[in-house]
Amino acid sequence: MNMCDLIVKKKRGHALSEEEIQWMIREYTDGRIPDYQMSAMMMAVCFVGMTAEETKELTLAMAHSGDMLDLSGIRGIKVDKHSTGGVGDKTSLVLAPLAASVGVPVAKMSGRGLGHTGGTIDKLESFKGFSVSLTPEQFVHNVNTIHIAIAGQTANLAPADKKLYALRDVTGTVDQMSLIAASIMSKKLASGADAIVLDVKTGDGAFMKSLKDARSLAEEMVSIGRLAGKDMTAVISDMDQPLGYAVGNALEVKEAILTLQGKGPKDLEELVLVLGSYMTVKAGKAESPEEAVCMLKDSLKSGKAFQTFQEFIRAQGGDPDDAVHPERLPQAAFQEPLLSDREGYICDIHTEEVGKVCLLLGGGREKKDSPVDLSVGLVLNHKKGDYVKKGEALAVIHANDRNRLAEAGKKLETCFEFSETRPAAEPLIKAVID
Amino acid sequence: MNMCDLIVKKKRGHALSEEEIQWMIREYTDGRIPDYQMSAMMMAVCFVGMTAEETKELTLAMAHSGDMLDLSGIRGIKVDKHSTGGVGDKTSLVLAPLAASVGVPVAKMSGRGLGHTGGTIDKLESFKGFSVSLTPEQFVHNVNTIHIAIAGQTANLAPADKKLYALRDVTGTVDQMSLIAASIMSKKLASGADAIVLDVKTGDGAFMKSLKDARSLAEEMVSIGRLAGKDMTAVISDMDQPLGYAVGNALEVKEAILTLQGKGPKDLEELVLVLGSYMTVKAGKAESPEEAVCMLKDSLKSGKAFQTFQEFIRAQGGDPDDAVHPERLPQAAFQEPLLSDREGYICDIHTEEVGKVCLLLGGGREKKDSPVDLSVGLVLNHKKGDYVKKGEALAVIHANDRNRLAEAGKKLETCFEFSETRPAAEPLIKAVID
Repeated sequence: MNMCDLIVKKKRGHALSEEEIQWMIREYTDGRIPDYQMSAMMMAVCFVGMTAEETKELTLAMAHSGDMLDLSGIRGIKVDKHSTGGVGDKTSLVLAPLAASVGVPVAKMSGRGLGHTGGTIDKLESFKGFSVSLTPEQFVHNVNTIHIAIAGQTANLAPADKKLYALRDVTGTVDQMSLIAASIMSKKLASGADAIVLDVKTGDGAFMKSLKDARSLAEEMVSIGRLAGKDMTAVISDMDQPLGYAVGNALEVKEAILTLQGKGPKDLEELVLVLGSYMTVKAGKAESPEEAVCMLKDSLKSGKAFQTFQEFIRAQGGDPDDAVHPERLPQAAFQEPLLSDREGYICDIHTEEVGKVCLLLGGGREKKDSPVDLSVGLVLNHKKGDYVKKGEALAVIHANDRNRLAEAGKKLETCFEFSETRPAAEPLIKAVID
Repeated sequence: MNMCDLIVKKKRGHALSEEEIQWMIREYTDGRIPDYQMSAMMMAVCFVGMTAEETKELTLAMAHSGDMLDLSGIRGIKVDKHSTGGVGDKTSLVLAPLAASVGVPVAKMSGRGLGHTGGTIDKLESFKGFSVSLTPEQFVHNVNTIHIAIAGQTANLAPADKKLYALRDVTGTVDQMSLIAASIMSKKLASGADAIVLDVKTGDGAFMKSLKDARSLAEEMVSIGRLAGKDMTAVISDMDQPLGYAVGNALEVKEAILTLQGKGPKDLEELVLVLGSYMTVKAGKAESPEEAVCMLKDSLKSGKAFQTFQEFIRAQGGDPDDAVHPERLPQAAFQEPLLSDREGYICDIHTEEVGKVCLLLGGGREKKDSPVDLSVGLVLNHKKGDYVKKGEALAVIHANDRNRLAEAGKKLETCFEFSETRPAAEPLIKAVID
């Protein structure tokens, strides 16, 4: 086989065969196909696309390029969850212990990643002593006893995807739907779960700006997963404003704790109940999503969800009492309200920009391995549809640097749009592909 | 400026600016833009295309990436000629001395290149002692005295094109019209002529298989040249059968000598008269192509053209008497006729395959720097429209190896198609873009 021939084949609009894709990914991972050929192939894929069959084969080839996790030591149907990411997205922090609290075995690999805030792992490290470096035995033991463990991604999980993503990132070939779907799903398949619930975000603060694109991505991922024998559901949820009120690592942990105690923001609670209900049904712990929602609501009300969260923090080295005393979590030196100089209904929030305010404060990662300030960020006081008077606080900014604080305030101010009439409320859940 | 941004811009269908193209070519030539970004850009160009303005800027940027030849020491309007290449294409061997014989200053840079035979330089080296390593002073002096000099391409002529072509060759991005046009024209512009006559071949033995593609390429090149201030004409000529009868280096030189003596094949003579007439008019040596054709015909008849050829051979180190005794040129050990086992009118010749027969005999170059056997090749006895009887010779094969001779015979046999009725004659000149 010859890579140049494969490039020309794809360029002319033909589908690559299973053997061709396997060969290509193996040779590329091993360094026998140079980057300059692979980037030409990726660009051709951007224009020609890939069939469902090709996308599945690419995903499988990338999943099998490194370790395939063996979760057979864990009893029950293992359910994983993945979010395509958004601003204020602390869903996993609530959802994982909540699902575990009703008996769903949650064996989750999580990343740090690039973004406006750190990843789930960074956020959990707001708890002093908390560690994601579990041995495989500890990981299995924790899930078998308290139904939950979250580990950092091992270095050798889908290395082909890692290499290919880094290339796509610098060659303008990131935004192709099948490639995005294959990238996400290759890591999910290598992570070994039996069932996967996807949270695909759409709107200004998401990678997929339009519902149409979000639906395409969701459908591609569900299709790949099913072709690979996984039980799949995708929920498409709104990201036209931050999820909940808090944006920033420790700030989001505090909001997650409130939510686990049944006192969280409505939108966040609604989302974890919907995603959690599908996880619960897939794990065989409820007959229907409706029954599952009741179980999950009970768990939030009874304190069982919060108790599972505390057990989880303890099992991975943190102090569960910190969850009862969130003031012990990292705190920024300055906390200053942003006062509104306008009056009216908030009709729009430039969500991606809100995320950038957090990044500006030091709460996110622009480059791999750059440090994340866990204490900084912002907490909105109002969301879309709220009426705000002149002089009222729109948000509170948490910062460790006076200059950055001032800059963040100026930027955040421009993120809000006002109208004289109340804007129509948008549903949080846009669609479910089940 | 950032290469990834430029890739995305092109991918989204936008045109790159003059500054962007200049920056991109400079940084790429100097190794500051990696191949993997440039190959993604080239693939995007294959799908999106380039505007006339972009193509011109790319051409100029590549031309200026190395030495720009200064021909100002040569008196008169310098005219260059370029052929896109075909089987049996010995046009330059005849055209250059013929045009020089009527006073056109022919200052030609020529390459060796890859192909079914060697390039013009290889062919001229059939003359013992002939050299293309001229100093700039010799080059200028020769053109000023005998109106003709042919030099080998210096290493630093359009190095950006050299680097980019090598990349396109292994990334499936060779067949984009604007990129092909820019590649050819960058070298032509760097070669410093005032006027350029292009011979764009079309048909089975040419790179451009269809007249439509040949016309597009011709129009692109003419447009680039004119935007760069050059006087341009393109002739589109037939390559659905070999040009003339001989295919192979020394064999083609012999046919070129016959043509310069007014005894050459009709099609070759017609082509050099048409191309030569435009060169003569551009150089200001004739008022009209018709007048120029008369001058050129006279030169062939009177022996002036052949005399100029001999002066040219002498001026570059060869023995002009060898042209009168072509038996002194390289001769193959075996010369065997290929007898027809069929009867009828030749209605088709698989021209590209005929070229491959010559390559198989050792007469061409598959890799850069591989040696070329100047003596081997084939001479057709018949062309399209001829009636051939069973047992009659179709061609004579010249070989230095018995096994290759046998293989070549088998292959060449399959290159001829016969019909019971005489096929309609196709015009040699398909179109002129003037």
